[in-house]
Amino acid sequence: MIPMLVARRLIDVRAKLVENDVAGLLVTKPVNIRWLTGFTGSNGTLAITADRWILVTDGRYDEQARSEAAAAGVDPEIMISRQPWEPITDLINSLPTVGVESHHLTMAQHTTLLNTFPTVDFRPVGSLIDRARELKDPGERDRLRTAAEIADQALGDLLPRVLAGGMSERHVARQLDTRMLELGADGISFDTIVAAGVNSSRPHHQPSGHVLTRGDLVVIDFGASIDGYGSDMTRTVVCGGRPTPEQDRIYHAVAASQAAGVAAVRDGVEQVAIDTACREVLDREGLGEAFVHGTGHGIGLEIHEQPILSRQSVGILRADLVVTVEPGAYLPGFGGVRVEDSVVVTSTGCVPITLCPKGLVPT
Amino acid sequence: MIPMLVARRLIDVRAKLVENDVAGLLVTKPVNIRWLTGFTGSNGTLAITADRWILVTDGRYDEQARSEAAAAGVDPEIMISRQPWEPITDLINSLPTVGVESHHLTMAQHTTLLNTFPTVDFRPVGSLIDRARELKDPGERDRLRTAAEIADQALGDLLPRVLAGGMSERHVARQLDTRMLELGADGISFDTIVAAGVNSSRPHHQPSGHVLTRGDLVVIDFGASIDGYGSDMTRTVVCGGRPTPEQDRIYHAVAASQAAGVAAVRDGVEQVAIDTACREVLDREGLGEAFVHGTGHGIGLEIHEQPILSRQSVGILRADLVVTVEPGAYLPGFGGVRVEDSVVVTSTGCVPITLCPKGLVPT
Repeated sequence: MIPMLVARRLIDVRAKLVENDVAGLLVTKPVNIRWLTGFTGSNGTLAITADRWILVTDGRYDEQARSEAAAAGVDPEIMISRQPWEPITDLINSLPTVGVESHHLTMAQHTTLLNTFPTVDFRPVGSLIDRARELKDPGERDRLRTAAEIADQALGDLLPRVLAGGMSERHVARQLDTRMLELGADGISFDTIVAAGVNSSRPHHQPSGHVLTRGDLVVIDFGASIDGYGSDMTRTVVCGGRPTPEQDRIYHAVAASQAAGVAAVRDGVEQVAIDTACREVLDREGLGEAFVHGTGHGIGLEIHEQPILSRQSVGILRADLVVTVEPGAYLPGFGGVRVEDSVVVTSTGCVPITLCPKGLVPT
Repeated sequence: MIPMLVARRLIDVRAKLVENDVAGLLVTKPVNIRWLTGFTGSNGTLAITADRWILVTDGRYDEQARSEAAAAGVDPEIMISRQPWEPITDLINSLPTVGVESHHLTMAQHTTLLNTFPTVDFRPVGSLIDRARELKDPGERDRLRTAAEIADQALGDLLPRVLAGGMSERHVARQLDTRMLELGADGISFDTIVAAGVNSSRPHHQPSGHVLTRGDLVVIDFGASIDGYGSDMTRTVVCGGRPTPEQDRIYHAVAASQAAGVAAVRDGVEQVAIDTACREVLDREGLGEAFVHGTGHGIGLEIHEQPILSRQSVGILRADLVVTVEPGAYLPGFGGVRVEDSVVVTSTGCVPITLCPKGLVPT
């Protein structure tokens, strides 16, 4: 596996502290702590200033924090305490302004900070680090690609049994999950969605006991995880392999929409353009109202991360982001279709990393 | 499966609104929304007043929210919106005081509420609902028991291969996860911990490529999930089946500590007494410093939930809570031992639901 450039990240974040005019930063969102330090524990607070960085965690994670940081090639000071602010009280009090992750810090934690450090100006810096995590280094892209390959193979192995019918949604989901683990995934990247028949009109349906029956549309949305980096792919097939004309019509509209979205991806384009490209095709087919969710999102240490691709997107796509493109059409009582790939943005377009064949009857 | 008494919960929460002197409550923590409405989606806001309750979610979850609520036997008004506050603006503005889940609401959300509803007094009610979730109804206990049975059987099936050595920590973890899915778990309740040899001194070690070798202490901490309810159990064994005298000494100290903790569990006792009972045994054995974490926690829709059993606990244990008792001793460079059961509190003591045999060489 290509090594990740973990040490580089602290340098980037320190530059952002200067840009944001704060003397220090408290990182409280676990996945952001992992990204900066390698530490995967559930309890951590990371304080960053121009010349120090200190990870506070509890006794359960003493050895683990040290070894995970060493494995990541970084060396934050590590302090053990049951109270997160206690060992860094003097440091925080020495700073006039401290940035906080206002999209993660809770109201209760904020109140505690205000009461504990009455002289410090705590400023919301929002998703500063989440934004920095958008760009994936070669090691991160390698992990996402590997996770996607595992998911491709797992679905490929299972697809004949899905097309044949007779398994329940829940059974299909479990078989996929099991197969991904056998193929070397560390875990699944989110709860696998298998939605068949009328259930397929629910974008985030949870697998039920419904048995796949000839004629069912079957939406399968799932991913594998490698070193915390999770893949994301959706395929829709028809059980029994003989779609009706209406299923065919809807499928081809969604597939064309998805292809238009992927074709719009390129370094430098407006993020909203991906959403527009997908939506135009479905609007033209009279399915605009049936597309009830956003078009895509970044993937990485979180399965839904920045950038979010939707009507509301305001940013620019840049090379080395990894995003999903996943339009769908959902018709309650009839069923639904979604097609999703994850792609790496490049200067000239994009490279899909989810390569499992598409089609209501994939070949 | 015994049905859960979901409709009862709204009545309890409304009573707590009166106690807390708030006219309404905004529930934003997803697991609390699930507990009240059955809705499992990732995006939801639930507003509760004396005579209305409204679940706001986005278009992805329109059908799902309605059917999950119906399946749970409850009927909140369901409104679809991309902006969570938009459809309930008039309702919120009509309330003088609104409770918010200050341990979950983010600083950014709080700021938005203050700016959007300048006349409303938003009052932190903290983990009001988390506390209400402590008591498990018969249906919840049934799910936790079923999850624990699956975990028991999965470990029982795998244990001979663990004792024989030769598998990596990661392989053991994957086999356990796979086996639980085969046995009917909806998923795993948290990332399975398998920590062998020197790694076993890390309480939350992540499974590595380390191959289990004769003489290794092997700590296995894991659980299955049924309908969102997750089990939790830890066993420590010695690979090869021949513990050293020092391994034996530490194991028996931890096992005695754990038994003392379980023996202390009963309706009406102070929660801190469980921690004290465990700690006294390890102190007496000179291992007090090696017990670096709390003694236990509630289990339910979250794997760590109220009540937390530690030195700092202030509450009283009550019948029908389900808690873990899990002391450990960790000696860096040597290894560690943890023994954990989940137990249902009763009026006379408790009933363990994790029944896999204990011992460095379980029989």
